[in-house]
Amino acid sequence: MTTTGIITPAELRAEVEQFYAAHFHLLDEGRAEEWALTFTDDGVFHPPGGREPVRGRAALAGGVGAGYRRLLEADEVHRHWHGMIEITPRAADGAVLVRCYALILATPSGGPTRTHLSCVCEDVLVRVEGRLLVRERRVHRDDQRGT
Amino acid sequence: MTTTGIITPAELRAEVEQFYAAHFHLLDEGRAEEWALTFTDDGVFHPPGGREPVRGRAALAGGVGAGYRRLLEADEVHRHWHGMIEITPRAADGAVLVRCYALILATPSGGPTRTHLSCVCEDVLVRVEGRLLVRERRVHRDDQRGT
Amino acid sequence: MTTTGIITPAELRAEVEQFYAAHFHLLDEGRAEEWALTFTDDGVFHPPGGREPVRGRAALAGGVGAGYRRLLEADEVHRHWHGMIEITPRAADGAVLVRCYALILATPSGGPTRTHLSCVCEDVLVRVEGRLLVRERRVHRDDQRGT
Repeated sequence: MTTTGIITPAELRAEVEQFYAAHFHLLDEGRAEEWALTFTDDGVFHPPGGREPVRGRAALAGGVGAGYRRLLEADEVHRHWHGMIEITPRAADGAVLVRCYALILATPSGGPTRTHLSCVCEDVLVRVEGRLLVRERRVHRDDQRGT
Repeated sequence: MTTTGIITPAELRAEVEQFYAAHFHLLDEGRAEEWALTFTDDGVFHPPGGREPVRGRAALAGGVGAGYRRLLEADEVHRHWHGMIEITPRAADGAVLVRCYALILATPSGGPTRTHLSCVCEDVLVRVEGRLLVRERRVHRDDQRGT
Repeated sequence: MTTTGIITPAELRAEVEQFYAAHFHLLDEGRAEEWALTFTDDGVFHPPGGREPVRGRAALAGGVGAGYRRLLEADEVHRHWHGMIEITPRAADGAVLVRCYALILATPSGGPTRTHLSCVCEDVLVRVEGRLLVRERRVHRDDQRGT
């Protein structure tokens, strides 16, 4: 941020990219509680396929923790990549809208790596005490269109 | 851009990345006319394999629109990812030269996602009324080398 | 860098991303000597699987050159993508610590493209005469965990 307090597009993009990197490193390492802290208190995840939204950090951490234990049992690593990140600051409330592609790579022990899922992710990021957090995430799977 | 009118490497990179994100979101959603407007009037696409160049927005939109209709018929989604983006401003005319990797992911309804094509993309971007546009694009497919 | 000599997170990220783009373009084109010059004189690569570290530019170039000749014989192209780049400047010595994901795409002549390897890469970048160079790289393959 400049001394005038106005954040430039380059500064915001750097911040969003650093945020996603840290956020998905936590997720993919199974650090579910720390990952949930990158959402707001009342953060909501709208999963693909019209499933019930997951609300709040405890529920978010619980879901991700259970998913990670299943990966451990399957002896598989997942890596979440965000790319083609389009960033739109919303003047009305200072939120940062993101539309991007998400690719999940899956690698079983012994390989090979496969492209597990291709998705579109829509995030509403908000700034809380200076840090970006996810207030709302909506994910659409490319293999389940119209859902 | 700073108040002095000099664009920094960080500002230019943020602009290029935002441009590509919006550009490929349009392409992958089949918004062919809007996508073609991200080229200059006389924009040229040199397809891989030595095929004839596609010149001008009408031809660009026509080709992409036809491609999108084939994907709809095949019930498949394509996602274009640009990555490893090397940016070289050209002092002589202010153009922005880009060399990057391009990955196309393809997902049929019901899955799974596959890595459809890996390419190298060379773009000449120019600024028209303050906005970046593609003046020239050259794509090389990794599965068709020497072409 | 600003006139005060303080590099901002946005400037550093742009520099790191440009560095990786150029670095992997050299690698994937088999320009082994030039690629080795993007390491420090005493640069070290710790390969996955607990294999012996590769030390110094001559050894780095030798290993990469041999690998590239094997790809030519196999008539295959590799593309290295870095993504989800988390950047941590280290105040003590000015080094730049990077943790990121690495994806290697492999495309034989005639296709199709496959996801050859998914890795985590940890780099220590240092600034030498104004330019970033790799002083140390540690790569972990997702298909070989615990190594």
